[in-house]
Amino acid sequence: MSGQRVANRLAILGIGLIGSSLALAARRHGLVGEIVGCARSPETRRTALDLGIVDAATGDPAEAAADADIVVFATPLSAYPALAEAVSPVLKAESIVTDVGSVKQSVIRDIGPFVPDHVHFVPGHPVAGTEKSGPEAGFAELFEDRWTILTPPPGTDRDAIARITALWQGVGAMVEEMDPRHHDRVLGITSHLPHLIAYTIVSTASDLEGDERQEVIKFAAGGFRDFTRIAGSDPVMWRDIFLNNRDAVLEILQRFNEDITALQRAIRWGEGEVLAERFDRARQIRRGVIEAHQAGSFDPREPEKA
Amino acid sequence: MSGQRVANRLAILGIGLIGSSLALAARRHGLVGEIVGCARSPETRRTALDLGIVDAATGDPAEAAADADIVVFATPLSAYPALAEAVSPVLKAESIVTDVGSVKQSVIRDIGPFVPDHVHFVPGHPVAGTEKSGPEAGFAELFEDRWTILTPPPGTDRDAIARITALWQGVGAMVEEMDPRHHDRVLGITSHLPHLIAYTIVSTASDLEGDERQEVIKFAAGGFRDFTRIAGSDPVMWRDIFLNNRDAVLEILQRFNEDITALQRAIRWGEGEVLAERFDRARQIRRGVIEAHQAGSFDPREPEKA
Ligand SMILES: NC(=O)c1ccc[n+]([C@@H]2O[C@H](COP(=O)([O-])OP(=O)(O)OC[C@H]3O[C@@H](n4cnc5c(N)ncnc54)[C@H](OP(=O)(O)O)[C@@H]3O)[C@@H](O)[C@H]2O)c1
Ligand SMILES: NC(=O)c1ccc[n+]([C@@H]2O[C@H](COP(=O)([O-])OP(=O)(O)OC[C@H]3O[C@@H](n4cnc5c(N)ncnc54)[C@H](OP(=O)(O)O)[C@@H]3O)[C@@H](O)[C@H]2O)c1
Repeated sequence: MSGQRVANRLAILGIGLIGSSLALAARRHGLVGEIVGCARSPETRRTALDLGIVDAATGDPAEAAADADIVVFATPLSAYPALAEAVSPVLKAESIVTDVGSVKQSVIRDIGPFVPDHVHFVPGHPVAGTEKSGPEAGFAELFEDRWTILTPPPGTDRDAIARITALWQGVGAMVEEMDPRHHDRVLGITSHLPHLIAYTIVSTASDLEGDERQEVIKFAAGGFRDFTRIAGSDPVMWRDIFLNNRDAVLEILQRFNEDITALQRAIRWGEGEVLAERFDRARQIRRGVIEAHQAGSFDPREPEKA
Repeated sequence: MSGQRVANRLAILGIGLIGSSLALAARRHGLVGEIVGCARSPETRRTALDLGIVDAATGDPAEAAADADIVVFATPLSAYPALAEAVSPVLKAESIVTDVGSVKQSVIRDIGPFVPDHVHFVPGHPVAGTEKSGPEAGFAELFEDRWTILTPPPGTDRDAIARITALWQGVGAMVEEMDPRHHDRVLGITSHLPHLIAYTIVSTASDLEGDERQEVIKFAAGGFRDFTRIAGSDPVMWRDIFLNNRDAVLEILQRFNEDITALQRAIRWGEGEVLAERFDRARQIRRGVIEAHQAGSFDPREPEKA
């Protein structure tokens, strides 16, 4: 399958799971000419070159962004402001700045002021991922059947939005536009809260003393393993997400706390019907996710046997 | 691979995910002669026969247990007392009663009094599973590389324990003996709490109004999908687990609540180092689970493409 070319030169700032997956997919589908990557460490750059993820790699964001038709921010959120300041002077007229960050109001706050008038700004978020990070983790199929949410500020050039839409559709994604505030709330529920809870359960377990700590690992197949997978995600990336989506996360956490208290009460008082009814409702949501083809697939066998 | 025969006639009460997986595995490894299954509904029995899971199927637990060398309880926990009462009079001398239930103190309380003196009682719990249920969900590899915990009461015949150990080892599991109270606490952390939390998050989402509820499903790939999978587990089975392991679950929930409150505070006050440090510790536990070969494998692609 080959899409329409959307950029002669694509610059990707941050060549990790998301940046490298986008590079691999954009190339596979013939969407771009040259791809230039930027990362701080020489190892990341070398790996990205060795794996054929980028055509050129540099540690200097301005060098990567110069002459690019599309510049994609794909580092953890805390790196955005300095990167935006660094690339701002070199951005080409009519080029597009976009990103893949998991929070959108903060991105508009952090990058927006550095985008010159002659440059378009189309913030985005591919709702796709794994718990792995770094350039080796990337794969071209990551965005297939997944949604990418775009949150362009009011008045953004429609052609620019159409080109970023074409980029994501070209790599297999479905695209939807959304208000950034709404985005942060919905993703607070579907992504940020689940990660926070997984981190909490796993770190609760890590506080146990020696023997019990070992047992928790040993008997992880009872459900804990799935939480450890989610809690295996990059600590810096997630720190940044929570710091940048504070209000939405705290609000949804409040609701969650109320709901867990209700279930706690039902367990304490032996209210079996309350439990079964709640569990049954949860199961219906599961069916919805499977029907919407957003479930992925889990293989209970160990990787080497799968 | 073919193990040593551990029973001429094996009776399995409850032919769901666990019962049918055990039947399929025991047969594949040549561990038993005849397998008789018991289930309430004619459909379950017919499916179990059609899929070659059992040699005979009946709705009458006493008929299944009569003449069996090993009787395995594999229904949801709430069915145990009535089943125990029903099979008690027909149990053969020197036969062994065992089970696969996820809670062990309650099983000893519910089955123990019905086990005659001339019969051995070796409660067990294979720490393995998926979110699916019913006879179609079973597969012979389920117990490979997984632990089965046995909680025999003090003074239990060592030969009987050795035979149940041989059964589980024969289907690929590792076996460990444990005090039932300790079992219930450890599994409270590694299995029951994660399921309760997953049910809570998913049912919190199911309380959202129409549009947002649809969006939560649509954008599930950000992490929520994994929780919906866990929350797709059988409501009755899980109701029974929480009702029967109340004290351990409430205690560990208390700890969890303290930990989530600490993270909530760190988010509110923007304490990035606290977050990153906790997340980093969780990641180490993940490494432990992978090294212990208890991780399973998740494929982010949709099942039909995987
Ligand atoms: N992972 C997911 O599931 C997921 C899903 C959707 C969106 N996102 C978003 O995507 C973004 C990237 O996530 P990821 O998972 O791809 O992260 P990742 O795998 O950890 O990669 C981050 C990349 O950024 C580079 N980097 C970090 N700081 C930099 C800086 N100051 N200047 C230049 N490069 C820098 C890193 O290389 P060096 O360390 O060598 O610099 C690395 O190549 C985040 O904003 C995240 O919110 C992630
Ligand atoms: N699922 C897991 O991941 C997992 C892991 C470890 C241990 N366990 C334990 O294993 C046990 C079974 O779980 P499962 O997942 O295999 O459940 P399941 O797939 O829902 O199967 C339960 C089976 O029991 C039958 N049944 C229910 N009530 C019965 C009764 N009164 N008399 C006879 N048969 C009855 C059901 O068929 P009918 O409805 O036709 O009667 C069905 O065949 C539970 O005690 C659970 O705690 C489960």
